[in-house]
Amino acid sequence: MSQQVIPQALERLILDLTKLPGIGKKTASRLALTILRRPAGEARELAGALADLHSSIQLCSCCFTFSENDPCAICADYKRDASLICVVEQPGDLIAIEKAGNYLGHYHILHGVLAPMDGIGPNEIKIRELEARLSTNKIKEVFIATSSTVPGEATANYLIDRLLNRSILVTRLACGIPMGMDIKYADKHTLARAIASRSKTT
Amino acid sequence: MSQQVIPQALERLILDLTKLPGIGKKTASRLALTILRRPAGEARELAGALADLHSSIQLCSCCFTFSENDPCAICADYKRDASLICVVEQPGDLIAIEKAGNYLGHYHILHGVLAPMDGIGPNEIKIRELEARLSTNKIKEVFIATSSTVPGEATANYLIDRLLNRSILVTRLACGIPMGMDIKYADKHTLARAIASRSKTT
Repeated sequence: MSQQVIPQALERLILDLTKLPGIGKKTASRLALTILRRPAGEARELAGALADLHSSIQLCSCCFTFSENDPCAICADYKRDASLICVVEQPGDLIAIEKAGNYLGHYHILHGVLAPMDGIGPNEIKIRELEARLSTNKIKEVFIATSSTVPGEATANYLIDRLLNRSILVTRLACGIPMGMDIKYADKHTLARAIASRSKTT
Repeated sequence: MSQQVIPQALERLILDLTKLPGIGKKTASRLALTILRRPAGEARELAGALADLHSSIQLCSCCFTFSENDPCAICADYKRDASLICVVEQPGDLIAIEKAGNYLGHYHILHGVLAPMDGIGPNEIKIRELEARLSTNKIKEVFIATSSTVPGEATANYLIDRLLNRSILVTRLACGIPMGMDIKYADKHTLARAIASRSKTT
């Protein structure tokens, strides 16, 4: 195939799009061709949104979530329970928990999980910052909500160990059968965890 | 969920991304959060690629593919067979055929298929432009390579009818079993077409 068949500007966009997670070469081509077929204004709008992203968003200096203000809306909300901190891996996890709608404490974003093989130890994620918050503020409960993956669990266990000597309640997100799921289709590890964590009905 | 949990600039990017085909709200959130986590330079590069797209790419005035030059590299290539025109729906189809590597004629991009229910008739796609090319140039063969979908087939059949009275050979892309496919897994329509189009082996 002769090199010039795909215009350079299109090749560039396709290449940039393939750097995003879950976007392969075929999807990137399809997206780029769609953008090209549509009015130039739509591409400019998307370009503007991308260009503005980093300049208008920073990390909250308290909980380290992405925010336009510092402190973020959650840290600044006096109606929320400041004695309760939910520890999550990424800002996306905070958004998911906020959507659940029944958590009214504060957050702490680790910005990663422990991954010794990739050189990510306790100092590479925001664990010291969490301890600093625990030392200065009146925190009663640290609620660990890392993902139920191997690195997420390892990070949770490391945190539990590290928080052991403080007089703070440490809790974890419950694991079990997803709502609405037929137990026939639950994987055996989830089912084993749900059985071990079975709760009283009264 | 309080409105301010997702920064406005992030919301805007998520909304813009969901306008792309195959990108739902969850995928858009994942992409936007990934872009935000990565260095600002990557977002600026992608923004630049998007902003440059329409300004540096136009339609070739001969075959109507996307190109940085007019005529495009294919129309300008004197080594290609100018008496043979391959008719495709979209520029992406041209790229796919070029990748196959064994077609050495010219192209004509229809920029759509006939879809009377959506108000797309023969005048809405580049059929008159194709006829204009057939009238002025020495075209010997029109090779119809629209998709093997209902509207693609309908467009092909319409073109065949419309080109009937010209002394031009009209050919179509062969339909059959994909290379490497076990016929057990081929759908019955494809198999029926492959049987009807069976070819001599000598």
